[in-house]
Amino acid sequence: MSFQTRITKLLKVQYPIIQGGMAWVADYHIASAVSNAGGLGLIAAASAPADFVRDQIRKVRELTDKPFGVNIMLMSPYAAEIAQVVLEERVPVVTTGAGNPGKYIPGWKEAGITVIPVIASVSQAIRMERAGADAVVAEGCEAGGHIGELTTMALTPQIVDAVSIPVLTAGGVADGRGIAAAFMLGAEGVQVGTRFLAAEECNIHANYKQAVLDCKDIGTTVTGRTTGSPVRCIKNKLAREIVAMEKKAGADQDEMEKLLTGSLRAAVVDGDDKMGSLMAGQVAGMINKIQPAKEIIEEMFAETAKVLSGAAGLLKN
Amino acid sequence: MSFQTRITKLLKVQYPIIQGGMAWVADYHIASAVSNAGGLGLIAAASAPADFVRDQIRKVRELTDKPFGVNIMLMSPYAAEIAQVVLEERVPVVTTGAGNPGKYIPGWKEAGITVIPVIASVSQAIRMERAGADAVVAEGCEAGGHIGELTTMALTPQIVDAVSIPVLTAGGVADGRGIAAAFMLGAEGVQVGTRFLAAEECNIHANYKQAVLDCKDIGTTVTGRTTGSPVRCIKNKLAREIVAMEKKAGADQDEMEKLLTGSLRAAVVDGDDKMGSLMAGQVAGMINKIQPAKEIIEEMFAETAKVLSGAAGLLKN
Repeated sequence: MSFQTRITKLLKVQYPIIQGGMAWVADYHIASAVSNAGGLGLIAAASAPADFVRDQIRKVRELTDKPFGVNIMLMSPYAAEIAQVVLEERVPVVTTGAGNPGKYIPGWKEAGITVIPVIASVSQAIRMERAGADAVVAEGCEAGGHIGELTTMALTPQIVDAVSIPVLTAGGVADGRGIAAAFMLGAEGVQVGTRFLAAEECNIHANYKQAVLDCKDIGTTVTGRTTGSPVRCIKNKLAREIVAMEKKAGADQDEMEKLLTGSLRAAVVDGDDKMGSLMAGQVAGMINKIQPAKEIIEEMFAETAKVLSGAAGLLKN
Repeated sequence: MSFQTRITKLLKVQYPIIQGGMAWVADYHIASAVSNAGGLGLIAAASAPADFVRDQIRKVRELTDKPFGVNIMLMSPYAAEIAQVVLEERVPVVTTGAGNPGKYIPGWKEAGITVIPVIASVSQAIRMERAGADAVVAEGCEAGGHIGELTTMALTPQIVDAVSIPVLTAGGVADGRGIAAAFMLGAEGVQVGTRFLAAEECNIHANYKQAVLDCKDIGTTVTGRTTGSPVRCIKNKLAREIVAMEKKAGADQDEMEKLLTGSLRAAVVDGDDKMGSLMAGQVAGMINKIQPAKEIIEEMFAETAKVLSGAAGLLKN
């Protein structure tokens, strides 16, 4: 069972699944594990310097000869340098977030790099298709970390109708039911972040991992809705304080900023589950065990097959 | 093709689809049209007096001999009276929102009424199953009107895992792709609101209907997130003013309340598309024409069959 779509052909992978480019989380360990398991692992460049990213790329290559990618956060001060690094290192796939990668796309395409921007609206998707993107990830607001406004159910079909390039769904996908639903909505692949937080090969602090396992359905919230920078994370002391500040008359943006600065690093590296930013999607409530990435992927697609087979039963009724 | 599930058996309908109990919108016209087309039409009791609701019930019965339902908004000052009216009138199905219908359920069940609360979290669903509900509608925050926090993709499978009674999905369902996705997530039916705003038999003002047709993917917003009463509606002057007030330091709740009072009636009855509350879901961007309810339902399920058949193709690859 391999679920061949335009995405598996484009990425040259067995399963149409990309691991999310989670800042501070997506390093060479999890990226190589996902790629070795037949998905596409990603290194998150986030706000890291170019040399760090180059080092990560080389480390992935030591651990896998399968395709992998780099996610470039375009608001990073190092974005332009990293855009050059992926060229020099001939990274197979680049995904982008937090900005318009238009100016880099011609160079990347010329070097044979597959380019997949993460988008959250129809107009962004159309702009990216025109700029030469090979596919887009349509990310719903149930996802963890920085989010847009539309949900996966509403966004995916509207993007599929708006562009001809293949679409991957991100947000709300934690098991085979989510993958099958994404296929029904017209997606040809998925990007999964939160479930890989619980991968054995995911190098986040044990406290962060435990917070994901403990998280219930209503266990996440969104900070920064009033400041124009919405971020989904698990409810903890930090999240509650920020949300309370946003509801209060005269919310002080500087004070909020002070609380948030370094808070993701505090969660990932130091395991601060009180004042760290435990970014995770709404599907955290469905994730209850730590597993190797390979087991996660194989389990997800075995369930997808089972669920899709059930569809045939519905038709017979 | 009839898609028999536990929901079609429970409701004694041809298609597993309920029309949303939209306040001021869901009257006997649209309810009877949906029921006659093989779905389950609903009358919204909203904040209307009991006699008004009784009159609506009798009018539905003049227009159809098929099953139909009443949606009871439990915060209504008339909720207790209406709970009695549905008993006296032997309404086949009752759905509930905005509260806990627990105290009414034994009486309704004894009278043979099918009870389906609308819920937005796992704990609510479990509570309703224990109270004797026959099914639940799991409503995602992409829906129009009053909403919870979880999206349909994240909510549906978590509810399906938590209860044994059948689950319907609401929010994000505007076509056959949405229905097929809901099935994949484990739902056995759907509740659809926004698409029926564009039904010929929907008696909302032409300006409101036009606003739904004109709405783009990012055309809705949520008011009342900071006040604990989030409502999704189409962006217009009213919505922009409320959202701006909520972001401003020292937002005045009384002033907001003054703007919102009567604003749904202004949209539905008077066609005020500037200061009326044009409640609609994120799928409004997918709705581009006015059709009879019967055509909408048959088109949606024909597409569901097509999409589910495509699933078989994916499995063969």
